[in-house]
Amino acid sequence: MSDTVTAAMIVIGDEILSGRTKDKNIGFVADYLTELGIDLEEVRIVSDHQDRIIEAVNSLRARYDYVFTSGGIGPTHDDITADAISAAFGLPCTHHPEAMALMQAAYSKRGLEFTQSRKRMARTPEGATLIANPVSTAPGFRVENVHVMAGVPKIMQAMMDSIAPTLKGGAKIHSRTVDCPLGEGDIGAPLTAIQEAQPQTMIGSYPRFENGAYSTQIVVRSRDEAILQQTVAQVEEMVAGLVKNRTGVVGR
Amino acid sequence: MSDTVTAAMIVIGDEILSGRTKDKNIGFVADYLTELGIDLEEVRIVSDHQDRIIEAVNSLRARYDYVFTSGGIGPTHDDITADAISAAFGLPCTHHPEAMALMQAAYSKRGLEFTQSRKRMARTPEGATLIANPVSTAPGFRVENVHVMAGVPKIMQAMMDSIAPTLKGGAKIHSRTVDCPLGEGDIGAPLTAIQEAQPQTMIGSYPRFENGAYSTQIVVRSRDEAILQQTVAQVEEMVAGLVKNRTGVVGR
Repeated sequence: MSDTVTAAMIVIGDEILSGRTKDKNIGFVADYLTELGIDLEEVRIVSDHQDRIIEAVNSLRARYDYVFTSGGIGPTHDDITADAISAAFGLPCTHHPEAMALMQAAYSKRGLEFTQSRKRMARTPEGATLIANPVSTAPGFRVENVHVMAGVPKIMQAMMDSIAPTLKGGAKIHSRTVDCPLGEGDIGAPLTAIQEAQPQTMIGSYPRFENGAYSTQIVVRSRDEAILQQTVAQVEEMVAGLVKNRTGVVGR
Repeated sequence: MSDTVTAAMIVIGDEILSGRTKDKNIGFVADYLTELGIDLEEVRIVSDHQDRIIEAVNSLRARYDYVFTSGGIGPTHDDITADAISAAFGLPCTHHPEAMALMQAAYSKRGLEFTQSRKRMARTPEGATLIANPVSTAPGFRVENVHVMAGVPKIMQAMMDSIAPTLKGGAKIHSRTVDCPLGEGDIGAPLTAIQEAQPQTMIGSYPRFENGAYSTQIVVRSRDEAILQQTVAQVEEMVAGLVKNRTGVVGR
C-alpha cells in the first residue's frame, strides 16, 4: 500500500543480550508507532560493538522510512552509539555546540562539574539534529532518518514524545479482537478461507494455553474501517457456528 | 576467545511488532543461554513474511554457533515458520512421520479430531530432528544449528529444556555487581581506566534514574574468577574514593 510508513528499531546493549536487563523499550515503541500509523517491521538487538551497530544501522536505514535506536548514549566507555552512528554515515563524531551549551547550563544550575565523561554525552555525528531530553538534558540526536535515543526507559519515552511531531504518520491501522473459546486447530481452515477472501485485512490468531486448555484470540486489522467490520462479522459468525457444533473438548 | 560459544535468536510474529503482544521469550532465552555459558550475540524480531524469516535465518546461522527461533509454528495461515525454514535450507516442507504419529496418538487420546490445520503443526523441513514438547505434543524441530520453537512462552520454555542437553556450553561467564551511589558522569573516566587495564573483563555500567537522582550499577563480567575478583576490588576502591570526596549532589 502506498500510504504505509515503515520503521525499524535497534536496541543496543550487552546487558539485554546477557539477560541482566529485560528490555522495556521495544513494546513501548511498537505501541507508540502503531498509534501513529507507522508499521514497525523489524527489531534488532545488538551488542556494544561498533561493527555490529554499523551493520544494523546501515542495513535498516536503507530499507525503512525510519530507524529508532535505544541505548549506548551515556557517559561511560561502553557507550559507543554516537561513534558507531557517525561511522555508519561517514561523519566525524564531535561535541555538538548546542548540546554542549544546554548541558553546561544544566550542570551549572545543579552545581555539578561538567566532566569529560559528561561531555561525551554531547557528542554526535557532525551536523546532527538534537532530540530534546526533558528528563535529564543530555539530548538524543537524528541523522537523516535515524533517531538515536537513550536506553533508560523514562528518558527514551520522553524522547519519543519529542520526536513524534516530526514524523510522517501513515493511514492508521484499525484493529478488532474476537475471543474464541476454541483452539487454533479447530478454526485454522475456516480462518484461512476468510483471510483469502479479505486480502485488505491482516488476520492474526493467537493461542492461549491456560489450565490445560486452549483458546484463541483472533485479531483482525485493516486500514479500512468498513472492510474491517465486514471481516469481523464473518469471523464472529464462523466462531459461533463452530461453538454450536463442538463436542465439548478443546485442543489446539 | 576460543572457548566462546555464540548464539542468535529470531522472534517471529507481527503481534510483537504491532505491540499487541509483549515478548517474554527474549529475556528467558538470554538468561538461559548465559547460564549455559553461551553468548547470545544478536536478536532479531521479524514479521510473518517468508522473505524476512529466510533472510534472518540465513544470515544468522552462518555467523553464530546456534540459532533459536520462537513463533509461527501453530496451525493457522499466519504460521509460516516451517515453510520459511525449509526454504532457507532449500529443503521440501513435509509432514514429519514421527510428529504425525505422536500427534495422532495425542489427539486420539483426548478425543479430538486430527484436523488438516492440526496436521500443519507436524510439518518440518524434510529430515529435521524433532524437539520434544511436553506441554502440548506438537513438536519443534532442528535443522543443522537452527532450533525452531513455539512462541507461547510455556511451550517455548519446555522446548528449551528439551534442547539444553544437546547444546555445547562455553566457559561460564561469572559476574559481580557493584552498587554505586554516583552517576555515570562521575565514574566514567576512572571506570574506563580500569576497563583498559583489565582486558579480560567486560565492565558494564547501568544508570538508574529514580526520584530525580542518578545512581549506577557497575557489572563486571569475566570467564576468569580470579581476574573478576581483582577487578571488582579495583572498582569498589574507586567508588569508595569518589564517595568520600563527593560534594553531596549526584547527577548523571
